[in-house]
Amino acid sequence: MRRRGYKVAIMDADITGPSIPKTFGISEMAKSNGEELFPAESKDGISIMSINLLLRDETEPVLWRGPIIAGTVTQFWTHVNWGDVDYMFVDMPPGTGDVALSVFQSIPLDGVIIVASPQELVSMVVEKAVKMAEMMNIPILGIVENMSYVVCPDCGKKISVFGREAQSEKAAAKHGLSLLAKMPIDPALASLVDAGKIEDFKGDWLEGVADDVEKQPHKEAE
Amino acid sequence: MRRRGYKVAIMDADITGPSIPKTFGISEMAKSNGEELFPAESKDGISIMSINLLLRDETEPVLWRGPIIAGTVTQFWTHVNWGDVDYMFVDMPPGTGDVALSVFQSIPLDGVIIVASPQELVSMVVEKAVKMAEMMNIPILGIVENMSYVVCPDCGKKISVFGREAQSEKAAAKHGLSLLAKMPIDPALASLVDAGKIEDFKGDWLEGVADDVEKQPHKEAE
Repeated sequence: MRRRGYKVAIMDADITGPSIPKTFGISEMAKSNGEELFPAESKDGISIMSINLLLRDETEPVLWRGPIIAGTVTQFWTHVNWGDVDYMFVDMPPGTGDVALSVFQSIPLDGVIIVASPQELVSMVVEKAVKMAEMMNIPILGIVENMSYVVCPDCGKKISVFGREAQSEKAAAKHGLSLLAKMPIDPALASLVDAGKIEDFKGDWLEGVADDVEKQPHKEAE
Repeated sequence: MRRRGYKVAIMDADITGPSIPKTFGISEMAKSNGEELFPAESKDGISIMSINLLLRDETEPVLWRGPIIAGTVTQFWTHVNWGDVDYMFVDMPPGTGDVALSVFQSIPLDGVIIVASPQELVSMVVEKAVKMAEMMNIPILGIVENMSYVVCPDCGKKISVFGREAQSEKAAAKHGLSLLAKMPIDPALASLVDAGKIEDFKGDWLEGVADDVEKQPHKEAE
């Protein structure tokens, strides 16, 4: 969405396993004026807030009980000065726990994208997530299949690493959802993520997702 | 460990994303005598308890706040009649959240095995887990690298799917831990997991882990 010219923000709601800052090569701490926190900005101008921007040592584990974790997520919404943003993405941890509940209850989401591996797609884990979103009346934009395949660097064969072909289409159909994208495992992408340079990556697997996000009607946040 | 003749139990402490019963093809509900719960038994005689054995519909999401989730994990330890068990494995969700805290505080663990992808190994997520275990005085048995490589079915090339070779050895050394095993992504294993037949899988990647677990000194549970 950033490449399409929008002002984009990412809220890293994975409090106990935050990975967004590292992916974008951000290591400074968040600034504050005493009342509000200000998100960090990535190389390409994406506003980012994560628990790791509030820790003096980013490898410090966050050993907090659920209510504190949930409170932190809520604060990321209420006490961060996000400025003028067209699209905000909220990165959530796996599962249907406290964080998902808090995000669903405290942030006026326009929709949810479920990201899962081919194996998770055929399992009940995704079904649980779908049902949770339905119970909380959050529209599901669709499914992104992650780790779909690997291309052999020697012979060019496209290997379905989890031994399944077309299973995700079936899973999407079963839940009445669109399959928005299939993301391969790409060593080049992995290296850029490790180096904090995800924005340098040129790949178009997510164009379908961007199209879909772009055409969603959205709620007004004040 | 089951193959080595031990009586083995698995506690699925991933309350909001339980995958153990499905992996072992278990779908019946847990039995109870009104006071205690009894674990289900797999084909090969492994005792298993999971939140999914307590739900009428296994696709029902568990939308619980942290304290309830933590309480459930504690109950799996206090209110389940595990019988006579040589080795109990506790499957935990990713991250350093409520469940990990409860498991570390309420169960007398002999040790922790950290399972991570090559990418997670070079990130701060694993460092957080290592620090958490240290803070709670739980010995770390070592690291298992998951999704290390894929073997191309056409040309036999071993593909490091995350673009890294020998990084996990470095990561293990950095944390002063042994790298117990490297698990490939194996489509055959994935299919057996999907079919609930993980016990039919013949693979020896985890022999090193079993050796290590076998020689650990262990606490007496009453």
